[in-house]
Amino acid sequence: MTLSIDALARLQTVDEFEQAARAILPTPSYDYYRSGADEERTLRRNRRAFRRYQLWYRVLVDVSQRTLATKVLGTDVAMPILVAPTAYHQLAHAEGEVATARGTAAVGSLMVVSTLATRTLEDVAAVPGPKWFQLYVHRDRGLTRSLVDRAVAAGYRALVVTVDTPVLGRRLAAERSNFVLPPGLHMANLKEAAQAVAPEGGLALAAYVASRHDASLTWRDIEWLRSLSSLPVVLKGIVRGDDARIAAECGAAGIIVSNHGARQLDGAPATIEALPEVAEAVGAMRNPPEVLMDGGIRWGTDIFKALALGARAVLLGRPILWALTVGGEAGVQRMLELMAGELSRAMALAGCASVTAIDRGLVRPAPRE
Amino acid sequence: MTLSIDALARLQTVDEFEQAARAILPTPSYDYYRSGADEERTLRRNRRAFRRYQLWYRVLVDVSQRTLATKVLGTDVAMPILVAPTAYHQLAHAEGEVATARGTAAVGSLMVVSTLATRTLEDVAAVPGPKWFQLYVHRDRGLTRSLVDRAVAAGYRALVVTVDTPVLGRRLAAERSNFVLPPGLHMANLKEAAQAVAPEGGLALAAYVASRHDASLTWRDIEWLRSLSSLPVVLKGIVRGDDARIAAECGAAGIIVSNHGARQLDGAPATIEALPEVAEAVGAMRNPPEVLMDGGIRWGTDIFKALALGARAVLLGRPILWALTVGGEAGVQRMLELMAGELSRAMALAGCASVTAIDRGLVRPAPRE
Amino acid sequence: MTLSIDALARLQTVDEFEQAARAILPTPSYDYYRSGADEERTLRRNRRAFRRYQLWYRVLVDVSQRTLATKVLGTDVAMPILVAPTAYHQLAHAEGEVATARGTAAVGSLMVVSTLATRTLEDVAAVPGPKWFQLYVHRDRGLTRSLVDRAVAAGYRALVVTVDTPVLGRRLAAERSNFVLPPGLHMANLKEAAQAVAPEGGLALAAYVASRHDASLTWRDIEWLRSLSSLPVVLKGIVRGDDARIAAECGAAGIIVSNHGARQLDGAPATIEALPEVAEAVGAMRNPPEVLMDGGIRWGTDIFKALALGARAVLLGRPILWALTVGGEAGVQRMLELMAGELSRAMALAGCASVTAIDRGLVRPAPRE
Amino acid sequence: MTLSIDALARLQTVDEFEQAARAILPTPSYDYYRSGADEERTLRRNRRAFRRYQLWYRVLVDVSQRTLATKVLGTDVAMPILVAPTAYHQLAHAEGEVATARGTAAVGSLMVVSTLATRTLEDVAAVPGPKWFQLYVHRDRGLTRSLVDRAVAAGYRALVVTVDTPVLGRRLAAERSNFVLPPGLHMANLKEAAQAVAPEGGLALAAYVASRHDASLTWRDIEWLRSLSSLPVVLKGIVRGDDARIAAECGAAGIIVSNHGARQLDGAPATIEALPEVAEAVGAMRNPPEVLMDGGIRWGTDIFKALALGARAVLLGRPILWALTVGGEAGVQRMLELMAGELSRAMALAGCASVTAIDRGLVRPAPRE
Repeated sequence: MTLSIDALARLQTVDEFEQAARAILPTPSYDYYRSGADEERTLRRNRRAFRRYQLWYRVLVDVSQRTLATKVLGTDVAMPILVAPTAYHQLAHAEGEVATARGTAAVGSLMVVSTLATRTLEDVAAVPGPKWFQLYVHRDRGLTRSLVDRAVAAGYRALVVTVDTPVLGRRLAAERSNFVLPPGLHMANLKEAAQAVAPEGGLALAAYVASRHDASLTWRDIEWLRSLSSLPVVLKGIVRGDDARIAAECGAAGIIVSNHGARQLDGAPATIEALPEVAEAVGAMRNPPEVLMDGGIRWGTDIFKALALGARAVLLGRPILWALTVGGEAGVQRMLELMAGELSRAMALAGCASVTAIDRGLVRPAPRE
Repeated sequence: MTLSIDALARLQTVDEFEQAARAILPTPSYDYYRSGADEERTLRRNRRAFRRYQLWYRVLVDVSQRTLATKVLGTDVAMPILVAPTAYHQLAHAEGEVATARGTAAVGSLMVVSTLATRTLEDVAAVPGPKWFQLYVHRDRGLTRSLVDRAVAAGYRALVVTVDTPVLGRRLAAERSNFVLPPGLHMANLKEAAQAVAPEGGLALAAYVASRHDASLTWRDIEWLRSLSSLPVVLKGIVRGDDARIAAECGAAGIIVSNHGARQLDGAPATIEALPEVAEAVGAMRNPPEVLMDGGIRWGTDIFKALALGARAVLLGRPILWALTVGGEAGVQRMLELMAGELSRAMALAGCASVTAIDRGLVRPAPRE
Repeated sequence: MTLSIDALARLQTVDEFEQAARAILPTPSYDYYRSGADEERTLRRNRRAFRRYQLWYRVLVDVSQRTLATKVLGTDVAMPILVAPTAYHQLAHAEGEVATARGTAAVGSLMVVSTLATRTLEDVAAVPGPKWFQLYVHRDRGLTRSLVDRAVAAGYRALVVTVDTPVLGRRLAAERSNFVLPPGLHMANLKEAAQAVAPEGGLALAAYVASRHDASLTWRDIEWLRSLSSLPVVLKGIVRGDDARIAAECGAAGIIVSNHGARQLDGAPATIEALPEVAEAVGAMRNPPEVLMDGGIRWGTDIFKALALGARAVLLGRPILWALTVGGEAGVQRMLELMAGELSRAMALAGCASVTAIDRGLVRPAPRE
Repeated sequence: MTLSIDALARLQTVDEFEQAARAILPTPSYDYYRSGADEERTLRRNRRAFRRYQLWYRVLVDVSQRTLATKVLGTDVAMPILVAPTAYHQLAHAEGEVATARGTAAVGSLMVVSTLATRTLEDVAAVPGPKWFQLYVHRDRGLTRSLVDRAVAAGYRALVVTVDTPVLGRRLAAERSNFVLPPGLHMANLKEAAQAVAPEGGLALAAYVASRHDASLTWRDIEWLRSLSSLPVVLKGIVRGDDARIAAECGAAGIIVSNHGARQLDGAPATIEALPEVAEAVGAMRNPPEVLMDGGIRWGTDIFKALALGARAVLLGRPILWALTVGGEAGVQRMLELMAGELSRAMALAGCASVTAIDRGLVRPAPRE
């Protein structure tokens, strides 16, 4: 079902990847991936808010030798562009998360593997390259602990705890197309737990979250999570500066400014709108957590803006799913190369030879038109 | 003419209720309900202005046990979502306001019954559950007094005096579709008075308001109104902080920030735009009146925003009419449950376990896109 | 060609008048009336800018007795809604400016008669009711003086000098439809002068303005103009506060904030945007000139906003032309009554029993949506 | 392929020139000329941003005698409207840059000839009239020096060094239509150098820039460039005030505020947005460089705004290409006359008899609508 290498090479933008993927995916799967909460206002805003910022580029800087390399939580990566945790990669490609991991490794990036993967975390970890594990905290603390233990054993380098999902947001588009996990696909890391809730599949996710996720999770539990392993803990889903400071005080090694791809609370700010406040809130702290962001990125210039506004790196969610759909491992690799190429060009044109040269002065809110 | 329970259950949003109702209602009735004044700028703005506010949610709060319960003027209600006074419910459903009252009571909410009801205030009062009576002050003070006396006798718990209608606004859409009260429907509370003006029905309302309502009403009359009974008096239709303070000084127990569903003065501010000023104006007073609002609410997140910006509760107008049309009593119940469910989800996702936890810091004007 | 009284009575808004007029007028005439300069940005903005202002109405004011009466330059008028000077009324109706004058007089308003009328200023003056004369200053000072003398003799009460037309703006739409004055129509006040320039008609106006208007006119000439008669001089076409102050110092009795119906300089501010600055600039002067405005008014609420922002009265241009087209004298009368009715309703709903009660606090810029 | 003189005379706006040119040009050529980088956000913004500014015109100024004459770098020009350097004029017209030069000279303007011309710089210089030479600095400093020497020998009066192109921006539209230089057309000034890179033509430009342009160029190299000749050096492509000050300190005689027709970095500010900062940054320096601008100009009022905001003159890029396509030399002449006529009219209507009278107070940001 994937495209030929030639056809893949002709895709020039993230939107073209999405269109090609849409032609391949069953409608419910496409709707599941694409949809956001309620009216999808935040979904649109995640993208559009990037346009609010302009690139006030510098000229006559030597940009003949450019590098995109950076470090995240001490791990070297070839580019400040990581793979966000997203569910159910086998909807997109038969090899699922394993193909994603291979494409990610091919370009020297890092993948965050979802609790809701359709391949086991061990299978994905068997692919070389650095990985973090995204964790949903379950009411069943034993289950939670076992996920952490498995992640440690498999060699994951950090735990990414999603904190914006005490209940599941309502994605009307996915409801309307009656999305269910197709026969043969499973939450591979949670097989038994999930079957207990919805043995037939069906609208498993909302039911699963309602019955199994821990809506009583608080900041105090972060310390408990940290005690489960020596892995650094990253909190994903924070948009407020005050929350970011609490996260830092609770020992979070990283913060991902995220609104869950606009799938939870419609009306939440775009992540690029929330990023500056979070970056400033922790910027002056001693040993500040690293700040990353995801949401709405479709162009290399979007990444440039995120780095300028305080992100150490960004994560790509849906673009990776479209790429996985159209090309499997090769698609993921091409998507990351495309984004890296665009970022590199933006850096050249803005006068930045390295990611550390991307300072806040290069990006300004656009004057009202 | 109403939908089956199954079809009703498939309606997921207020807009879907409206579309379903539109398919059922005669065009003039639909236009009468839907229309706003003149160009309908304020009508659109009532809805759109909610989008100006973003939900800067908090994470890692225990939201496993949530309650929507609150009190309005001392009455316990299960949710901060009341039924606004609207005219002529028999246009929507044969049982009219009685069905609305039943659906409202089923979820523990409170209904404000209109002077312009098509069922007598006594009939509606016979349905269990707390109710307030909306009052238009007539030039004929005897008639006005008799309405108050009847409301007291029937057990209404407050008088909601509409103060934004010295003359009737012009609703072009309703005029163009020649809306008249169909044969057999009456202003049940005003039968004789209305027939004296327009025995044939026709454009009864504008004529009725022009000839019978008291356009000379002033703040001084509020004291007289208060003297008619021991019921608390709520003033509906205020948008200014200075007017709100005068209302409080005149002894109003409550203020409903409202522009009459954008049916009176086109160009008036959206109610969510007016709410913060009103809430602040009376917030620092001793024994401040309770502040409520209506206008433009279509989502649970809209209600969340109104509560964050100072409303103790909101009232739903048109959404109740659509729900009454499509499902009678069951429709009204389902609409209120839908809104309550959406509000509850928004509270969970924003970190609020109760309505008192919804503070102003959670809502901010969106940055310009 | 005009509509029946019944059809006329069914027109409910200015836009409906325009649509009806468009169906009657030859395209070139319609385009001539409707068009603005260049891209017509200011043309659109003249209308849209009114939407920027909201009506923060007051309640519980006695508005049972309302009056729209006011005075302009000492003349009593029944409403603060005057007839702006516009060219060539015989394009719209065979009786031309005479019909306009009759409709204006019927409601107690005041007409400003254009130099470019198709009926002589004497013919128009023969219709009862107060009138001002709009004057273009010609290089031929003898001609200019003779126009003033004629206006005095005919009983005009003021001279309205247009100051925004040293050259004619380019109205692309009118050029594209090849507008020319049809056979039999003439600049009745300038017959000989005009024929000398363009005996065949044709694109007479741009050529006429270029060859005959005085592009060297300066503030010093205003004193000369004042010396020609004892009539008060009103300057029409000012948008800046500093220009307004100079006008006052030069003895102007009135200022019309106008951009010539957006027909001169595309990119000029909307007149409602310029009005507050002009009103403030002269407001603190001793014996300030009266401030009026035209441009973009289509609703009674627009007039309300203009009065609140400092205008003593407004002038209607195109709406009168549409009304004259569809109904001649009766059309003009109906248009003025429609606008007066809308203004009266807006005053009732905003808590104003007279035009002097319309204070600036009732109008505020809308929050960004 | 060009239009008749009559058809040419009927074109009234730049957009009409573009439409006419589009009907003549092969699609790839049209796309090459028209396209901007990536999403073309900056391309649209270059035009739209002019609308943000309003013309607060003055009245009663003597504008009967107007002049557009000015000086740029000491050269007298009849109008503050120059011809921007653009590539490949033979795509538009068989005579290429020679026709452009003739049309420019016919109205007393000045042409900036591109390094990427399809006619040799010597051929173009043979046409009378003042010219500047636009220079891309090559890694091969010998080639660079030889271009400078040739420009000096041919009588060019200034070097315009493009500083915004260390790599080539991606113009998706041109890529999608597979633009290549048609057979028989060459980079006439670089024949040998270009053929070494892409002997077949093809996507020569991106490859050429990548392999031959000097991405390591810095401010220090400007001094070296100045040392190559006695010609004044103008830096083209600056948008920041701080860069403008450095340019001045490096001895630049002029700065062109430009974003390369929005063909390089999508998300860059519109040039009219950048102009005020640049003008202010150098305005207070001793011997400040002259500030010019290009980008998005389509109307005489746009030019007026640029002059008011600090530009000594503007340059036209795409409008000249459309004009060259539709009319060759005569088309270029007509375009410049059209723009000059529009500017002159705007000056008359704003109260400016000369370009020096166009002060900043005449232009203000528009209030939000």
